[in-house]
Amino acid sequence: MKLGILGYGNLGRGVESAVMQNDDVELKAIFTRRDPSTLTINSKTAKVISVDEIEKYKEEIDVLILCGGSATDLPEQTPKYAKMFNVIDSFDTHAKIPEHFQNVDRAAKEGKKIGIISTGWDPGLFSLNRMYANAILPEGSDYTFWGRGVSQGHSDAIRRVDGVLDAKQYTVPVQKALDSVKNLENPNLTTRQKHTRECYVVLKEGADPKKVEEEIKNMPNYFIDYDTTVNFISEEELKKNHSKIPHGGFVIRTGKTGINKENNHIIEYSLKLDSNPEFTSSVLIAYARAAYRLHKEGQTGARTVFDIAPSYLSPKSADELRRTML
Amino acid sequence: MKLGILGYGNLGRGVESAVMQNDDVELKAIFTRRDPSTLTINSKTAKVISVDEIEKYKEEIDVLILCGGSATDLPEQTPKYAKMFNVIDSFDTHAKIPEHFQNVDRAAKEGKKIGIISTGWDPGLFSLNRMYANAILPEGSDYTFWGRGVSQGHSDAIRRVDGVLDAKQYTVPVQKALDSVKNLENPNLTTRQKHTRECYVVLKEGADPKKVEEEIKNMPNYFIDYDTTVNFISEEELKKNHSKIPHGGFVIRTGKTGINKENNHIIEYSLKLDSNPEFTSSVLIAYARAAYRLHKEGQTGARTVFDIAPSYLSPKSADELRRTML
Repeated sequence: MKLGILGYGNLGRGVESAVMQNDDVELKAIFTRRDPSTLTINSKTAKVISVDEIEKYKEEIDVLILCGGSATDLPEQTPKYAKMFNVIDSFDTHAKIPEHFQNVDRAAKEGKKIGIISTGWDPGLFSLNRMYANAILPEGSDYTFWGRGVSQGHSDAIRRVDGVLDAKQYTVPVQKALDSVKNLENPNLTTRQKHTRECYVVLKEGADPKKVEEEIKNMPNYFIDYDTTVNFISEEELKKNHSKIPHGGFVIRTGKTGINKENNHIIEYSLKLDSNPEFTSSVLIAYARAAYRLHKEGQTGARTVFDIAPSYLSPKSADELRRTML
Repeated sequence: MKLGILGYGNLGRGVESAVMQNDDVELKAIFTRRDPSTLTINSKTAKVISVDEIEKYKEEIDVLILCGGSATDLPEQTPKYAKMFNVIDSFDTHAKIPEHFQNVDRAAKEGKKIGIISTGWDPGLFSLNRMYANAILPEGSDYTFWGRGVSQGHSDAIRRVDGVLDAKQYTVPVQKALDSVKNLENPNLTTRQKHTRECYVVLKEGADPKKVEEEIKNMPNYFIDYDTTVNFISEEELKKNHSKIPHGGFVIRTGKTGINKENNHIIEYSLKLDSNPEFTSSVLIAYARAAYRLHKEGQTGARTVFDIAPSYLSPKSADELRRTML
């Protein structure tokens, strides 16, 4: 399977790296909006090509992985490129998924291609686990916790505060809330009860820490509904201790069965990831394999993780899977 | 969807009870090899019918759930009834799955029906999680732990020991081994290091506890490779404290990504179940829904959990799933 990447940020570099763990996958090209000569890539085989030339590679690329952002890139890119390529994206604006799905479905059918949207781990693996658990235990409650991990959006928000040179924000699930769920207390949890926010902030010279801390803690949408701690550290410390992009989380469903609903069950799925972009990329590659196969079967249109039989993700044959993994 | 059950043991009663949690499912009939008049069932709507009459119900039942055992019942029953009905089983003799699959595939194609084999949680949900995790993290290690839970097979083995009136056996994962896996120590674990076996035994009058304990602990296949504890208790105590059938376990994959494999990831799936048969039944019903839909689409033949897109398990439409669960 010959892959292309569009966009060489954290996620694009993650896909480039994850290709090395997949023997059946070859990275052919990295497409960029920047001047290709300014990009230094890790891959020995891939070419760096301006996105303006992408149409010329329609025959060379089996699946194009779109590594742009959900806010402005993917709503435009995924439908556009689904007309020319089988595409995979990690579109994660949950409220806009139905609209995005329709746009990609229309384009992919027009191009006779497959477009798999909203893969990764949330949406993606977490969604799958919510769905399986709900189908199996119809009477119950769902809980999703994120972290401990770096939220790029919240880190960016802090960096926009006056007086801040650099920052990292960790989302942390509240252990007490997790315990309550696992103890079958069936809690109704507020935003504040589920997660705390830990900020590591480097100040610009002369900035007032009191003022910066107040501004962060009271920021609407991002921080005001949470218990937030702000730690001021040096630039060196930020680089040394906070340069990785870990993440993870928990999807838990608690449910009841029995004539008198006397039996409780807990289904729990959790991830603990050293590198969010590399893990997300690994999921994207597994779904690229699925897109490649679905297209070979003559299927077209948009798909999500819900629509794809698990075996399509594995390089092993159905026979081998039954023999070794069932 | 109109369901039939074949076999009214723990699993059959579990399916009967799990139907109550599923609004789109109606239990039409329980087929039994016993004299139907001797069965008292919980369902208000279902009829109890001799298995000898089952062919007459071909048009009335959308999916037949086979609730027999894997040793002798299912190898014969699943192919036999796949000629007449869409069928679901929980065949769990891992080594014989490929052969069973072929037999069911042939029969189901002949009858133009769908046969989904080896559903439940292991094989079943645990298999799914092993497979997804392997497809996503190709470089890594798999660990499956079972328990704490009742092993029916081991309990039966103890009951066959001379001097034993009744017994329950719990399989218990070793916390130290679990911790080692989660601490990324990548251990090679022996059978003894992964699980211990806890036995609760009621002696017959005059039996020698020393002799019974020795015989249990040295039983080949069942106990000799494990650290086993034997507790002698009264019949009343066994009834009071050990009448439930809980189970559960963990599927963990640890894997690496990164140019220099510098990043570690842990994918963990766990179940904690008050009632093994009721939970297994809940999985069977979700896959019965899938069988019903696949058959409606005109598909035929054998399937496993690997072959079935997740959305087939849910009563919700694809549109609703995307809107509410992605």
